[in-house]
Amino acid sequence: MKIGVLLSGCGVYDGSEIHEAVLTLLALDRLGVTVQCIAPDSEQYHVINHLNGAEMVEKRNVLVEAARIARGHIQALQLVNSTDLDGLILAGGFGAAKNLSQWAFAGADGHVLPAVQQLIVEMVQAKKPIAALCIAPVVVAKALQGSGITTTLTVGTTEASSPYDIAGISAGLNSAGAEAVMMTVDGIVIDKVNKIITSPCYMMEASIAQVFIGIEKTCKALVEMIRETAT
Amino acid sequence: MKIGVLLSGCGVYDGSEIHEAVLTLLALDRLGVTVQCIAPDSEQYHVINHLNGAEMVEKRNVLVEAARIARGHIQALQLVNSTDLDGLILAGGFGAAKNLSQWAFAGADGHVLPAVQQLIVEMVQAKKPIAALCIAPVVVAKALQGSGITTTLTVGTTEASSPYDIAGISAGLNSAGAEAVMMTVDGIVIDKVNKIITSPCYMMEASIAQVFIGIEKTCKALVEMIRETAT
Repeated sequence: MKIGVLLSGCGVYDGSEIHEAVLTLLALDRLGVTVQCIAPDSEQYHVINHLNGAEMVEKRNVLVEAARIARGHIQALQLVNSTDLDGLILAGGFGAAKNLSQWAFAGADGHVLPAVQQLIVEMVQAKKPIAALCIAPVVVAKALQGSGITTTLTVGTTEASSPYDIAGISAGLNSAGAEAVMMTVDGIVIDKVNKIITSPCYMMEASIAQVFIGIEKTCKALVEMIRETAT
Repeated sequence: MKIGVLLSGCGVYDGSEIHEAVLTLLALDRLGVTVQCIAPDSEQYHVINHLNGAEMVEKRNVLVEAARIARGHIQALQLVNSTDLDGLILAGGFGAAKNLSQWAFAGADGHVLPAVQQLIVEMVQAKKPIAALCIAPVVVAKALQGSGITTTLTVGTTEASSPYDIAGISAGLNSAGAEAVMMTVDGIVIDKVNKIITSPCYMMEASIAQVFIGIEKTCKALVEMIRETAT
């Protein structure tokens, strides 16, 4: 069984959320599956100094930076076909909303990178399970918009502390044609019809151990779905 | 209980090994301790493209890059005093041998960053437990050289597959005045006299789940030692 882990750089504010990405690799390895890290070979939207939040005057490549998380073992998205994978997970971090899509700047009106959209749509149409962590459900919602597929997703809950506008992002998901539901950091939402799993992770105020609970549940559900699909 | 996690950048080839750093944060959080990420506010020795291994013509700051792993919650080493901490863990990655010390270029003849040396020596002299993962034991050995403290450390074993020269690095540790012992990836070496714990992690050919076994054991032993010291 091979599961793709789609990354968008290396660092929460301009790329993949590092904890979420690494904990996904840990959970998948413990489940005994083969992992293929993937990232687009494209320029990052920008580079953020993670110490002070300021934009830095330099350029970085999404694939090259994501290779840091993958210890060099990563493939360019352009070379990956949905037929190579049994499942796909999108890690969170602002990279999903800045490098994989334009959500951070245009909300539900923004586009998704065509190669990302193609991979997601092909996986879902082939009934191959996918998962999205943290803010990454916005990429899935935008990718599926207009495909005739209506999915149920979460980016967190307004019932607990979050550094982000959960209500606003959830409204954006709805306007993109998805159905946003509320979920706590240690929970997952499973769309059984479309085989799509989501978990809020660092969309909520959370410790790394809490985030890992949601990621472990997500990975277990994903692998279980793939096994069910195969039988 | 507050434990410092000393980072050296963000990426195995020019900074902190990201998996080791994140899994350390996970293990410590699960143990209920407060974590303080720390890194020197200094320029990286160089920047490596993690996709192809080539040196890149740019400069990055160790603290600013380490802040990616710490999600911004990190303190400059220069502002951290050993009296602030109950224990200390050094993550691995080439950054330990390139940014915290000169081991990668000068072996046992190289220097350790003075602020790193001071923190390690003060912690050990105060009988506060420290741990070092992967290649980071070379930093501890060099820091303690000439202090009159002889410690027992591991950087792996020659009895299993490793991408590195375990025999050569172990000989270097010995020439720096430490005693290198062999240990497999899922094991730890405890120097009870000096309260120093080491585990090989990615010095060996290993999966992320195997590395986490060694890191969990390391963190548990460290926290246990701190509790024993406090009673």
